[in-house]
This record gives sequence, structure tokens and C-alpha cells, in this order.
Amino acid sequence: MTASFAPLANDRFLRACRRQASDTTPVWLMRQAGRYLPEYKATRARAGSFMGLATNVDYATEVTLQPLERFDLDAAILFSDILTVPDAMGLGLSFAEGEGPRFAQVVRDEAAVARLAVPDMDKLRYVFDAVTSIRRALNGRVPLIGFSGSPWTLACYMVEGKGSDDYRQVKTLMYARPDLMHRLLAVNADAVAQYLNAQIDAGAQAVMVFDSWGGVLADGCFQDFSLAYTRRVLAQLKRTGVDGQDVPRIVFTKGGGLWLSDMGALDCEVLGLDWTVNLGRARALVGDTKALQGNIDPNVLFAPPAAIEAQVRAVLESFGRPHTDAASTGATHVFNLGHGISQHTPPEHVSALVEAVHAHGRRIRA
Amino acid sequence: MTASFAPLANDRFLRACRRQASDTTPVWLMRQAGRYLPEYKATRARAGSFMGLATNVDYATEVTLQPLERFDLDAAILFSDILTVPDAMGLGLSFAEGEGPRFAQVVRDEAAVARLAVPDMDKLRYVFDAVTSIRRALNGRVPLIGFSGSPWTLACYMVEGKGSDDYRQVKTLMYARPDLMHRLLAVNADAVAQYLNAQIDAGAQAVMVFDSWGGVLADGCFQDFSLAYTRRVLAQLKRTGVDGQDVPRIVFTKGGGLWLSDMGALDCEVLGLDWTVNLGRARALVGDTKALQGNIDPNVLFAPPAAIEAQVRAVLESFGRPHTDAASTGATHVFNLGHGISQHTPPEHVSALVEAVHAHGRRIRA
Repeated sequence: MTASFAPLANDRFLRACRRQASDTTPVWLMRQAGRYLPEYKATRARAGSFMGLATNVDYATEVTLQPLERFDLDAAILFSDILTVPDAMGLGLSFAEGEGPRFAQVVRDEAAVARLAVPDMDKLRYVFDAVTSIRRALNGRVPLIGFSGSPWTLACYMVEGKGSDDYRQVKTLMYARPDLMHRLLAVNADAVAQYLNAQIDAGAQAVMVFDSWGGVLADGCFQDFSLAYTRRVLAQLKRTGVDGQDVPRIVFTKGGGLWLSDMGALDCEVLGLDWTVNLGRARALVGDTKALQGNIDPNVLFAPPAAIEAQVRAVLESFGRPHTDAASTGATHVFNLGHGISQHTPPEHVSALVEAVHAHGRRIRA
Repeated sequence: MTASFAPLANDRFLRACRRQASDTTPVWLMRQAGRYLPEYKATRARAGSFMGLATNVDYATEVTLQPLERFDLDAAILFSDILTVPDAMGLGLSFAEGEGPRFAQVVRDEAAVARLAVPDMDKLRYVFDAVTSIRRALNGRVPLIGFSGSPWTLACYMVEGKGSDDYRQVKTLMYARPDLMHRLLAVNADAVAQYLNAQIDAGAQAVMVFDSWGGVLADGCFQDFSLAYTRRVLAQLKRTGVDGQDVPRIVFTKGGGLWLSDMGALDCEVLGLDWTVNLGRARALVGDTKALQGNIDPNVLFAPPAAIEAQVRAVLESFGRPHTDAASTGATHVFNLGHGISQHTPPEHVSALVEAVHAHGRRIRA
């Protein structure tokens, strides 16, 4: 398989993940392949549904590459959903139009938890096939990022059955039956680890764990019910990809800024941060050991280009001058949003953001 | 007016706000008068609507006192809504059944901002009359807290027109036209200050500013668009109530834990904290200058009483032993939830929580 992948033309993103210097700050955007792009909406219309899109290798490849045609992005991310793993566990994922994900079965009692097991990875073959197909289609243009939801974030959906604004069901289970929650999370962690390893074997060049709902937990609970199981995932991950290169691991906890020192102790290469975190302070806390990824508010993209450029400069300057010595490693920054891009975003504003990152990223290194 | 108010029988809450020692840790709960109580639902049914309840002095008095009949709470809080002030500005507040608040008019452009002004406080007379009525009805049993939404939190609703999950409209205005946002926030701050001062004149013994949506702002924006206007409110507040006593000021920014050192510099007596914040660390940061209020996850109340007690102990112990020397001031703790109580809460679980706070609060002082 190794021989079939082209050498990498743009390695800015992977260099920054490895805390190596690069000519400017690399940038990619969470949900960069998505509904704000008319060409994405056209492909989705042909696919018929979100899962029709995600489970078809050709469609998934097509939409993953779409934003790269428009914008000078430094990485691609697999087009998929964080809920594929519980779907493969048999919970029955569906996306009702305009409603978000929903599971046919919820996991709220001892019997339901006892039925859970790490799914046969063959049920997720469509994801791994998409990874290989996308990597081939990229042809070395930029690296490909694989991803999964974190064990806790998957648990939120498995227990609630859908999105929630109060996390009542999942927290009730956690506070009332912590033993069951720990069992559920252990299954999730082992499943996520196998899932990410299979993505690495299929050609992923970096992997990211999305702890989208870690930030809703109380101090103490975050460490016990989210971070501990992210750690269990990380400990099982392959460190080398099919091309013999190391595979950087990114962990992003939305709303996790208060626990940055706990997260600094994780065995991973990159920490994702949302816009509430001051990048300079985060760098002072963990920049000696981790690259930092983030963290502009995606709502900045609704402002006119001049305002977008000013906000980009402010984010780059809050991180400060990145490491520039080619012979050593140091503090590096991957520019990203602090949350997925909104479907209402004007695409030309994304161009303004990407160009501003690269231009000002060069200036702060000069 | 002074003579008509009875002396205070239970001053635990006010003592803790003043960083004075008390026999145990005082406790009250955000939204303690609310839909989880059958007697509240009965009164609301008689009132016909939420605003019918909030604008009727007798009903507002009745529901404010209801939780005190059931639970050994150490404070009462005015029954009202944070959106009364923009309603008085003429934006047309309504509560559709099961849908949350909604404004008939939104503030999204220069003309709409230009039309805004501090409302005539006479339009909010029903609130001040309720404060006086409740204070009389309390008859010195526990102190009465008045409150308002923060300037930023009011702005979120005024621009969005209702609740939001992405704050797209208000952040678009903020990033695209910061000049308009600053004008809007200045009007809000002056209106909130007049509103809280009128509550103090009507008998409120402490006041709280709810910055419910400060935590959605990016670092930098929080300081400029939320904190700066909370400061503008605080600077205008009366320091002495109608009984000649000082009136402690509480500021609570949900999701504001990362900015605790900024908030430590506010000219107020108490900082509210949500459950993501470690109370021990917060105490180390600001406990020399402020009392701390918070911060258990309201979802704890869905667990059985034994689990509730364990979580209460954990919160009290994370704060540590409070100041106990009657002759001086020191670090004190007001126990509360980190967010409003859920309508689905079993009332008997609230009893378990309140009893656990008082019992364990005595133990940690022993």
C-alpha cells in the first residue's frame, strides 16, 4: 500500500504538529467540507442523505477535496461523522432533515450497557475505504487527518439518543451509576482506538479525537469520565502510518480550557483549543511539549474581510512568534476555528481568512 | 420604608457575602422558585402565563416564598426574568408555551440601536413593587436577592430575538460593527444600573448580575464586550440598602472560569462560579478579596440522595475549610448550583442537598 501514496508536497501541517518550523502558519478548518459550499450541497443532493454521502467512497472523496479547490488549506480531513462507531455497535444512527443525529436505541440501563461491545471493524469498512480513496485522490497535495469522537462524547449521544442542551440523561447515569458509565466508556475507548488504528492503516497521516462535550462536565468528572478514557485511546494508538511516518495525535476538548494543565500531560502531540482560551497563556502552560491548534470564533467569518483579517492577526499575535529554527523543535501553532464552520458562512470570507493566516504567518516569522 | 422591614433572623448568606464567618455554609439555588415545584405550577396555572405571574405582585410574592416552605434555604431571590429591562425598552417580550422567551423586535442595525434608550423605570414598577412585597412577606426570615441580566447577556437576546445555539447574529454585529455593539451595551449598562438601584431602594438586600452568555465570547471579546459593561454597572450601584445595611453585589459569568483573574479585579463582593471551576483553585486566585458562590452541577439532583450527599461533600471540600474567626474577614463560600435548577428535579432531592450542605458545612468548621 505504501508505494501507492505520492510523496507529500505541502508538509506545513505535519511539521507544525511535530513542533518543527515552517515558512508560515498552517491552516485548516473544522467541517471545511460542508454545507456552506454550494458544490457540497450539490453532491449531498445526489447522495440523497447525509449517511448516503458518508458511506459512499466516491462521494466522501469528492466532498473531502472540494474545499481544497477553493482555498489554500494545509490539510484535508476525512469526511465522516463522529457517530459512526456507536452506529456500528448497532444503535441505529439516522439524520432527520434539519434535526441532527438520532439513535434508534438509547443506552440508559445495566442491560443496555451489558449488550455493548467493540464493533466488528468490518462494519466500518466504508470509512477506511474512504480514507484510502481520499489519500490517493489527494496525491500528496496535503496530509489527510482521520478522526473520531471521544469516548465521553460518544457516550453523550448513546445515552441521550440525540443532541441535548442539558445532558440530563447522560449525567443522571454518570452520577447515579458511575459503574455503568465506566463500563460504557471502556468499551467506547477500545472501539475508538481500533477505529483510529484502522484509519491509520488505511492511510491517515494524523488523527484527531473530538471531545466535543467534555466541557459540559464538572471539574473532577472531566478528569474521571472524559480525560481518563481519551488517555486509554491514546495509549492504544499506532504511532507509525503505512508510509513509515509518525502519525501526530490531536486532542480537542471544546470548553476544556480550564483543564489545560491536565491535558498538557496527555501522551499526544497537539492540543486543540477553543476561542475562550488565550493562546499566549496556553503556550506558556504547555507549549514546551505540545503544538497548539486553534482557535478563532467561527462567527468572525460573518464579518467583512477587513474585520476577519484583523481578528486573524489578533489570534496569530496572541500565540506570538512561533519556533523558527529548522534544526530543533519548539512552540508551533496550527490555525483553525474553535468549532466547526457554520453552514451560513460566505465562502469568499473563508478565502480572506486563509490568505490572512498565511500572509500574517509569514510576517510574524520575518 | 425602613421601619416596615423586620430585622433579619438568618444572616448566614449576607455574612458569607461579606466574608464573615458563619455557623455553616449558606445555600440557595438559582431558579429555586420554579417549575420543579407542583405548587409553583399551580400558581402559574392561575396566573395564565409566565409574564402574568411575573407582573403580578401577589403571585410573584407567593412563588418566591414557596421553596422556603419546603427547604431550609438561606436566601430568597426575587421571582422575575432577566429580560424585563429590554421589554421595558419596547422590544415586546413574550413567552410562547414550551419555547422560551422571544422579542417582537430585534436590534440588528444602526437605526435600531439609535432608537434604544434607558427605559423609564416606571415601566418596571411591577418589579420594584414585588421586591417590597416579598421583603415584607419574608418578615426577616432570610435576605432577599434582587437581580438583572448583564448588559452583554441582554444584548444577546435583543439582537438574536430569542435563545440561540450559535449567537450568530449578536456576534456578527459585534465583529462587523463593534461601534454599534458598544453603544447598545452602554445603554444596557446604564439601564441595568438604574434597575438594580431601584430594586435596592425597594428593599433588595443583595443584587446579582447574571452574565449567562459571557462564556460564549472569545478571549479579548469577553473583556471588551461583557466585563467592561458589568464594571460600568457596578460603578453606578448604590452601596447601601433602605435599612442602612451594605448591599453585597454578586457577579456570575456562566462559562467564565478562564477569566477568573480578570473577574477578581471587579468592584463586587461575590463571584459566582459554574461547576467546571475547581473551587480550591478559585479560592487561591481570588479568595482573599471575594466570597465565592457555587457551583454544583444541577444534574447531580437526578441521582439518589446518597450520591447527592457525596457530591455536596466533594464541592464543600474542594473549597476547603472556610474562614471561622468571628473577629475578622476571610475566605467564605455560598453554596449554590452552577446553573438554574432543572424543571425535572425531584423536590425531595433538593431537601437532601440542602440538608447535606448544612450538615457537612458544620463538620468542616468543627
